[in-house]
Amino acid sequence: MLIGRVVSNVWSTRKVDSLSGIKFMIVEILDTLLDAEEEDKRKKRRNVLVAADLVGAGVGEKVLITSGSSSRRIKEFEEVPIDAAIIGIIDEKQS
Amino acid sequence: MLIGRVVSNVWSTRKVDSLSGIKFMIVEILDTLLDAEEEDKRKKRRNVLVAADLVGAGVGEKVLITSGSSSRRIKEFEEVPIDAAIIGIIDEKQS
Amino acid sequence: MLIGRVVSNVWSTRKVDSLSGIKFMIVEILDTLLDAEEEDKRKKRRNVLVAADLVGAGVGEKVLITSGSSSRRIKEFEEVPIDAAIIGIIDEKQS
Amino acid sequence: MLIGRVVSNVWSTRKVDSLSGIKFMIVEILDTLLDAEEEDKRKKRRNVLVAADLVGAGVGEKVLITSGSSSRRIKEFEEVPIDAAIIGIIDEKQS
Amino acid sequence: MLIGRVVSNVWSTRKVDSLSGIKFMIVEILDTLLDAEEEDKRKKRRNVLVAADLVGAGVGEKVLITSGSSSRRIKEFEEVPIDAAIIGIIDEKQS
Repeated sequence: MLIGRVVSNVWSTRKVDSLSGIKFMIVEILDTLLDAEEEDKRKKRRNVLVAADLVGAGVGEKVLITSGSSSRRIKEFEEVPIDAAIIGIIDEKQS
Repeated sequence: MLIGRVVSNVWSTRKVDSLSGIKFMIVEILDTLLDAEEEDKRKKRRNVLVAADLVGAGVGEKVLITSGSSSRRIKEFEEVPIDAAIIGIIDEKQS
Repeated sequence: MLIGRVVSNVWSTRKVDSLSGIKFMIVEILDTLLDAEEEDKRKKRRNVLVAADLVGAGVGEKVLITSGSSSRRIKEFEEVPIDAAIIGIIDEKQS
Repeated sequence: MLIGRVVSNVWSTRKVDSLSGIKFMIVEILDTLLDAEEEDKRKKRRNVLVAADLVGAGVGEKVLITSGSSSRRIKEFEEVPIDAAIIGIIDEKQS
Repeated sequence: MLIGRVVSNVWSTRKVDSLSGIKFMIVEILDTLLDAEEEDKRKKRRNVLVAADLVGAGVGEKVLITSGSSSRRIKEFEEVPIDAAIIGIIDEKQS
């Protein structure tokens, strides 16, 4: 899984039918532990992906993201063509 | 999912039979939020992939792309050997 | 598979139901053999992922990580939406 | 899918039995649209993969490559352990 | 598939039960065709993965590696949680 931080919602009106009602979020990927200098570089270039959300993640929250066919092992997503899903919100008191 | 921008069509006459009639698009991958300097670098080196399209995406439109086995969870693509599909067109009034 | 070193636990209270009771670890990915100069660079920028753990890996231990649908070929994880699992602890007397 | 250019054949005599008779090609991956300066850099460092070929691609031809489980959605490859296949030859009159 | 060169064995005593008896090798990934200057850079930073081996690959040999669910299309690996396997040894007289 990847750790990410929710950036914003993303809307699509014209889309594959089975996606109706699914909430999509743009998430910044936090897949590195950085020293201060590298942290500055990251702010210039933030890697993002779009994940389906079922756990009610809000903008700014740190989340756990699963990718690939694993994202369809959630009952609500079994028959939809998604490849990334938010599966948990990371508790605040951790790094 | 990834966000991308449609660059052009791609044609293949000699191909695996099951691909007949499928529309393929070259899509630039927009998987980073960049500051101005980094944005300039991106213009020099644009990452692309080819995705099958069912939603009628046009050149220049921003789209949502699903990858891997998930792209075969669309009824029309269940039995074809594709690994990326455009599943939605992103509404214009967003970043 | 990837080789990694366990960094810490990660906790999530609000999560998909099927994840209850699964132990998640942040793992630094050691996917390169480096000379001394490059090793210094790595310390500034450590790539991590989150893996489910069943073998009782402890912080600091070197582990073997499987990714994607393969992580669900472990009986306990068959029906859960994970995409990475620790499948072994690497014996100490190796590089 | 990825766009690639066929570089050469690759032969393996000692291999898994089910691979007998399959033609494997080394393919350079063309996953970026580059300006002139970046194009020079690419010539120094060409990313390649090996793909199974069924469409009769020749050295130097531009091809469409599918990856992962999708490459096994071709009838001849259903039961073989390949993770990349050439599914089409790109028509010459395009970029 | 990827081309790699076998670096060493890797041992794990505490592991998932289904992995018993499987031979694991650390393999350097040779996924680029390099000019001389870039080749020097590679020696400083060698990307590796761990693959299960069934074809009897020895240290120093060039091998063909399959990844993801495809590695479980080998009869002996159908029920094990591996995500990479050596499927052939590349004949010596090629690049």
